[in-house]
Formats: sequence, structure tokens, C-alpha cells
Amino acid sequence: MTDYYLAIDIGGTRLRTALFPAGSREPVRHERISTRGAGSTLDRLCDLVSRVWPNDGPVRAIGAAAPGPINPRTGVIYAAPNIPGWRNMPLKKELEDHFHVPVELGNDANLAALGEWRFGAGMGCHNLLYLTISTGIGGGVILDDSLVLGEHGLAGELGHITVLPDGPLCGCGQRGHLEAIASGTAIARWAAEQLAAGRQSSLTPDPAPTAKDVSRAAQAGDALSIEALSRAGHFLGVALADFLHAFNPSMIVLGGGVISSGEVFLAPVRQAIYDHVMSPAYVQDLKIVKASLGDDVGLFGALALAASKY
Amino acid sequence: MTDYYLAIDIGGTRLRTALFPAGSREPVRHERISTRGAGSTLDRLCDLVSRVWPNDGPVRAIGAAAPGPINPRTGVIYAAPNIPGWRNMPLKKELEDHFHVPVELGNDANLAALGEWRFGAGMGCHNLLYLTISTGIGGGVILDDSLVLGEHGLAGELGHITVLPDGPLCGCGQRGHLEAIASGTAIARWAAEQLAAGRQSSLTPDPAPTAKDVSRAAQAGDALSIEALSRAGHFLGVALADFLHAFNPSMIVLGGGVISSGEVFLAPVRQAIYDHVMSPAYVQDLKIVKASLGDDVGLFGALALAASKY
Repeated sequence: MTDYYLAIDIGGTRLRTALFPAGSREPVRHERISTRGAGSTLDRLCDLVSRVWPNDGPVRAIGAAAPGPINPRTGVIYAAPNIPGWRNMPLKKELEDHFHVPVELGNDANLAALGEWRFGAGMGCHNLLYLTISTGIGGGVILDDSLVLGEHGLAGELGHITVLPDGPLCGCGQRGHLEAIASGTAIARWAAEQLAAGRQSSLTPDPAPTAKDVSRAAQAGDALSIEALSRAGHFLGVALADFLHAFNPSMIVLGGGVISSGEVFLAPVRQAIYDHVMSPAYVQDLKIVKASLGDDVGLFGALALAASKY
Repeated sequence: MTDYYLAIDIGGTRLRTALFPAGSREPVRHERISTRGAGSTLDRLCDLVSRVWPNDGPVRAIGAAAPGPINPRTGVIYAAPNIPGWRNMPLKKELEDHFHVPVELGNDANLAALGEWRFGAGMGCHNLLYLTISTGIGGGVILDDSLVLGEHGLAGELGHITVLPDGPLCGCGQRGHLEAIASGTAIARWAAEQLAAGRQSSLTPDPAPTAKDVSRAAQAGDALSIEALSRAGHFLGVALADFLHAFNPSMIVLGGGVISSGEVFLAPVRQAIYDHVMSPAYVQDLKIVKASLGDDVGLFGALALAASKY
């Protein structure tokens, strides 16, 4: 008889689940469905979990990664913008009532940090920052081998540091946050603004360029696109220097699509870090690495969360 | 027979020590001398400690608060600018060799955070930020009832977050850090610059105003002084919003002389926090309070450090 952990990754597009034997990082079963479909999302999620439930041993715990503001201490999802009806959803309690095993819930970016630390690029490291640079910017922090949660589990929102006073509007409604300047969305928007202002570029204004378009054009030598990525990388580096002073990690793990732009983005990141730290002690044995778990990071983070508690 | 803890506070001006019975926060002996004087600072410190050493019971441990960059994990002071000869000083080892009891060393601002959390304004709180706004800006963070150290004990340097790109030069050599804009030194410098530029004020340019002068003039209604403090408070608030996103504390404890300027400084701090947080969840039960341990915070922090380990 084997004990198991069951991992859930709740995305705006897909619901995923995987069953792991205790002590293993190789799932023996996994399933995925669209987040939207007939019936309530909760019923569909429970059905999905049932499909991978083992019949040859107990499930020690379920770990679940969820987007949006959540309280991991209570297991409540405050708001999941892409899931109809999920406001103040007590997911931990709902799943525990349904499956009769302990359930642990975490913010997806926080759990990505935990996943990369436990199973990915950050293995063996004790103090780690994780940032994902994608449509938004999410983060998570490991200190002394523990995920930093804060009072209500809202810590690690590293995308919402103010890097440019009175800067562009952020998705959260405030101004000048890192996410409003260095996310993929922000990079594409800045490029579009420059095109609208008449700057020359191989990018075309209609349809508006995506971050991927900017990245591709930068690889091909387009000056405007290179500037767009370099500017974003600069501000990310400034923010990372701030986080080095705050947390003093030994490793920064960077995930998300924008990172695949490579050196045109990463060289300015490193330069800005070095130009803003108060002492070389913060960078002398600092590793800056790419995330390694790809699309599975949410499932691995959920597994790490469940296995860390049960 | 009583067990004791012995606390040391190493300042640029004074060396202080106090002897506490285990379980008590009332010292039974305390002594202080000038940091500079005849003989080596280490010999003078050892002599000072010997003068309060108990003869009716063992010392469980010595805790010591020291300024400047130190590694609390190894007990080495990298540099103490105000103490001649203290570069890469292995203070933990020196004191352990001399007194034959365990010694724990901490950065003074970090230990002030620990002291306020254990014995002062932050008692009973689990997640706390401490900032001291004085000639410089130092900080410390308590998360889940533990002091945040980071990989090399360099975490919590909250004064060195970039709040104004390409802003004024900081004492650390970088630009635009919070300390370069909101410390007492920075407030006084900004006021002096405005006077030099011809602004009207009750402050006089020669001798240059101190932060205390600015504070006093602001209380009396001087518009320039009010603006100086309000500007500093604004940037402090922006930085605190960043730290709320990073750490999600339930309390911010503010120490240092600048805080005594009162509402002219603190109202802009609160306003900027509310204007920059991504969600009201970060402030809804947040307490912002003044530090309560005054000049003794270093000794209490050192006591808290020693008692937390032995």
C-alpha cells in the first residue's frame, strides 16, 4: 500500500490535477479540463480530483494552487476574476468536506516559488526569491527553508513595488508599480505607445504588438524592441536590488514568458542590480537563474505545500 | 542561585551593558562608557562586561547589538566606521574566548526590531516591520515570530530601497534610496538646498539647519519646513506600501528622532501608504505605532536575541 499526495492547479484557463506517491515527484496519474464548462467550477473540480483518486492507498493531503488574492491561512479565495462565482470561496473547507483529507491552499506565484525551491531551479537553496514575469508579475519568497506568508498570507506580491513615482497605471489600480512597467503587458503597451508617437520600428501598430512580437523583433535587431525590453529589465533590476536589501536571498529564480527574451532583457536586469545595491555583499555569491519547472510549476508547488505539512 | 543574560549595545558614541536575571526585563546592573578612550575598544568592552558580571549565578548567554554591516550567522563585524580597528572583527569569538559563555551578535536596527517585538510596542504581534528614521534609516523584520536574517544576515536594510530613480546620493554610495530622501540628514539637506535656492523660511542658512531645527520650525508653522517633512513622509509611505506587499505585517513600528515631528510627518506617511497599496487588505487591520523602548532598545534587543537562543 502506498500513501499519496494530490496536487491541484487552478488556472484561469485550465484546471489540472496530479497524483503523486509520497516521496516521488513523478505523478502516477494526471488530468486536465477547461476551467469553464457546464456545471459549477467547484463540481467540475471535485469530479476532476475524483478521476485521479487512488484506490490502492490513502491520500495524505491535497495541495492546491490558486490565482488571485487568497488567504492560505484560512483557505479562502477572496476573488478569482476568471472563475464565475468564486468570491470568498472557502475552497479548503469545500474540498475537505468532500474528500475527507487535509487540504492546503496557496497563491499560485507563492507556490511556484515553493515548487522551484523544492523540486526545480532552487533545490538546496535556503533563501530564495522567485518572480514570474508574464502578463503580470507575481512573486514568492523562501526564507530559512520556509515560504514567507505574512499576517494574512499576502506577502510576496513583488510585482507591486513602486519603481517609478506617478508612473503608468497598474492592473491593481495604483501607479508606477513594477508590474505596470516590466510585465509582458507593460512591455507591449510601451512599444505600442512609442509606435503611436511615430517611432520607427519593424513592429506594426495594427494589430497592436504583443510582448512576444517585441521579443521576436528584438532578437532580429529592432532598436525600439530592444529598448522596450532593456527598459523593462532595468526597472526589474532596480526592484530586485530593493528585494536583496529586504530579504538577502542567495538565489533569484526568474520565470514567465518575458525571460525567454534572453540577454536583451537579462543583461539590463543584472546591470541595474549591481548599480543599486548598497554593498557588493548582496551580490557576491548571488545566483540569478531561470525557472525550470515550466507549466508544471503550479502542480509541483501544490505538491510541495501538501508534503511540507503532512 | 539565579541564571542571567548579559546584554551589550555597541554604539559609535557609547558602549553600554546590562545584566538581566533570566525571565526579567529589569536589569540588576548596568554600566556605560565612551566608545573611544585609552586602550583598544575590545579591551574596554571586556572590562565593561566584567564590571556587571554576576557572582551569584551563571550567565546563560551574552547578546550584543552592533552597528554597521555584520554577519550575525558568523558573529563577525565587517566594518564599524566609528570604531578604530574594527574591520572584520570576530566579536563573537573574541567574547566567547574571553567569557566562556555563548555570544550572539546582531545588527543594531535588526535587534531594535527584535527588542520592540519582544518587550516594546510590538508585544504580542507575530509579523512586524520596524524602521528607525534618524541620521540614517535602519530596519528589521519579524515574520512568524522570528527575526528575518537572510542568507548572510543582511536582510532588513529597509532604508536602501530606491524610491526616486536617479535621486539624491545615499550614504551607501547609490542614488535615490529612501535614506537619501527621508532620513533626518536628508530632510535637513533638502531644507538647506531650498534656502540656498532663495526660498523664504524662518530657518536660517548659516549654520545649516538640522533635522531638529526643521521639525521645530514646522511646529511653528514654517511652510518650507512643513514641506520638507511632508515630502520625506510621503516617500517613507511609498516605501512602506512596498514593504507591506513584500512582508504583509500586521504592525509597523517607527522609531528614531524624526518621528517626534508628529503629524506633519506621519499624516503624509499614512496617506502615501493608502495611495500605493494594491488592495485595502494590506491596511485594514494594520497598526502603525511609535517605538516605545527609546535609548534602551539596543540593550533590550540584545537581551531578546540571547534569550531566544539560550
